[in-house]
Amino acid sequence: MAVYTEVTAEELADLLAGYDIGRPVSMKGIAEGVENTNYLVTTEQGDFILTLYEKRVACGDLPFFIGLLDYLAAQSVPCPVPIHDRAGQVLHTLCDRSAALFSFLPGISVRRPSVAQCTAVGAELAKLHLAGRGFDMRRENDLSLAGWERLREDLGDHADALWEGLGELLDSELAFLRAHWPDDLPDGVIHADLFPDNVLFLDGDVSGMIDFYFACNDLLAYDIAICLNAWCFEVDHSFNITKARAFLESYRSVRPMSAAETEALPILARGAALRFLLTRAYDWFHTAPDAYVRPKSPDEYLRKLRFHQRVKSLSEYGLAP
Amino acid sequence: MAVYTEVTAEELADLLAGYDIGRPVSMKGIAEGVENTNYLVTTEQGDFILTLYEKRVACGDLPFFIGLLDYLAAQSVPCPVPIHDRAGQVLHTLCDRSAALFSFLPGISVRRPSVAQCTAVGAELAKLHLAGRGFDMRRENDLSLAGWERLREDLGDHADALWEGLGELLDSELAFLRAHWPDDLPDGVIHADLFPDNVLFLDGDVSGMIDFYFACNDLLAYDIAICLNAWCFEVDHSFNITKARAFLESYRSVRPMSAAETEALPILARGAALRFLLTRAYDWFHTAPDAYVRPKSPDEYLRKLRFHQRVKSLSEYGLAP
Repeated sequence: MAVYTEVTAEELADLLAGYDIGRPVSMKGIAEGVENTNYLVTTEQGDFILTLYEKRVACGDLPFFIGLLDYLAAQSVPCPVPIHDRAGQVLHTLCDRSAALFSFLPGISVRRPSVAQCTAVGAELAKLHLAGRGFDMRRENDLSLAGWERLREDLGDHADALWEGLGELLDSELAFLRAHWPDDLPDGVIHADLFPDNVLFLDGDVSGMIDFYFACNDLLAYDIAICLNAWCFEVDHSFNITKARAFLESYRSVRPMSAAETEALPILARGAALRFLLTRAYDWFHTAPDAYVRPKSPDEYLRKLRFHQRVKSLSEYGLAP
Repeated sequence: MAVYTEVTAEELADLLAGYDIGRPVSMKGIAEGVENTNYLVTTEQGDFILTLYEKRVACGDLPFFIGLLDYLAAQSVPCPVPIHDRAGQVLHTLCDRSAALFSFLPGISVRRPSVAQCTAVGAELAKLHLAGRGFDMRRENDLSLAGWERLREDLGDHADALWEGLGELLDSELAFLRAHWPDDLPDGVIHADLFPDNVLFLDGDVSGMIDFYFACNDLLAYDIAICLNAWCFEVDHSFNITKARAFLESYRSVRPMSAAETEALPILARGAALRFLLTRAYDWFHTAPDAYVRPKSPDEYLRKLRFHQRVKSLSEYGLAP
C-alpha cells in the first residue's frame, strides 16, 4: 500500500532501453500490493506495471511466480503478463531490488461484492485451477498447517492479550485441524489470496486477477475455502448463503468438485479462517502502534472461524445435502 | 505520498455519472501529493486525476485553486485542467471530502535536474507568471514573513534541540528579513512550491506543472528565489552557478526582471530558504518518530540559507554585475 523504493526517471529510461516497448511517457507510484513497490508506467506502446520486490517476497520464489504468470497468461487467464526484454529476461535488478514489468490490466476491484460478482469469481477461480494443470514448477504452501503452528508459537501470550481465551481457542483449533486435515484431495496451483482487492471487474466480468505472490501448490478446494471466507461474508460478519451458493455453483459448473472435496469444505474453511486470523494477529502485534499502515483487525477472522466451527451440514454453505 | 481515503468502485461510478467523460475502466491510488489523496482514473475517454482534499488544504481556498487552474489552462499553461461536470461544477463531495477531477498530464519528474531542465523550467515559470496576470481572485501567502514568525514561535526550544544555536540563527534571520523584505516589487500569482517533483518532463520539454496548492499572490521574484533553492543546488548542497545562470537567463528571456527584482534576489533567496527550513523543522518535530512517512531533514535548507547569507554580489547567482 505504499511506494517503498523511489525509481528515478533516469533509472526507468535505462531499464526500458532493454525492452521493445517504447520510451517512457509517464510513471506513477501506485498504492497496490502490501508487500511490494508498484509503478504504473506508460510508454509509447501502452500501460505496464513495474514491480520492485521488497523484503517480504523471497527472491528464490520469484522464478516460480514469473513462470506461473507466463504459463497462465499463455492459457488466457486474465493475469498480469510478464514482459520479456530483448534477451528474453523478465527479472532485473533496479535500485538494489529484483524488479519485473507486467502488462497492465483494466478493471476496478470491489469492496462489497454482489452475488453476480461472486458468481463471476467462482467460474474464474475454477478456470485458474484448470489452467494451472501441467505447470511443472512447485512451491510449497508455507502458510499451511506447519506455518500456522509457527505463527501460533510466535504469538505466545500475546494471543490472550488480544482476547481472553484466544490462546486456548487457537491451540484446540490447531489440534483439531492437525487431526482432521485432508491429504487426499485434488491438488494443484492455487492463488491462496484471491480476496476482492485482487480481482478486477469491468462491465460485470472479471478483467483481471492480480497479486499471485502467495500462489503455491496445495489442495484446490482449500483455495475455494479461502474465497468462501473472503467473498461470502457481509461487512457485519454475517455469512451470506446466497453468495456462497452462487460462488460454489459457478465454480462447479467449470470444474466439478468430488464428493470428498465438498465434504471437506467445513474443515478447509476453518483452516482458511485460522490462517488469516493468525497472520492478522501476527501483524497486529508486529506493527508499531503509530506506524502509518494500520493492520487489519484479527477479529473479523475469529468470527468467521466460529461460524465454520458451528457448521453442521453442507446445506449451510448453500450446497444440496 | 499516500492514499488516505479509499474510494470504492461504486462511489467512483456514481461520481462519473455526472460527467461526460465515459464510464470508469480503471482506478489506482497514486503516491503523489503529500497532502491529498489522488487516484489515476481511466475512463473510456482517457486518463484523469481524481483528487480528494485531506485536512491540510483549507476548503475555503479550493475555489481559488480551481479557478486559477481553469484560468491558466485557458492560456495553455501545462497544468492540470479542472474537469467540469454536466452542471458546470468542479468541486464535489466524495467520502466526506471535497473532491475534483483533473486532466492527466504526461511526463515524469526528475530528481537531479540537468542544466537543460533548469533552462526549460525557467521559461515555464516566467510563462506562468505572465499567464496569471488578470486572474482576479486573491489568496494571501500564509507562508510569508508573518507565517514564518508563527512557525518560529511554535518551534520554541525544539530549534536548539535540532542544532545548538539554531534558535538564535532563526531569530536574527527573521529580524533581518523583517527589516529588509521588499514590498515594492511586481507581484502576481506565484506557484510557491515549484520543486522538481512538481514538474513533469517529456522529451526534454516541460509537459506539466502540478500541485498548485501553495499558489497565492506574492512577489513574482520570490517564486524565482524558491526555484533557485529547489533547482540550482546539487545533492551535496553545493550551489551550481551554471544551473542558476541558465535558469535566470531563460526566465528573463520570457519575462524581463527589473533591476530592483534582481537586486532583491539574495534576500528573497534567504527568505525562501528560511521558509523551507522552518516548515521542515516543524514537520520534523510534529511527525511521530516511527510514522511511516519520514519528514525531510531541515539540514538541507540550513545549508542553503547560509549560502545565501554569504552572497556578496549578484555574479554569484550567475548574473552580470
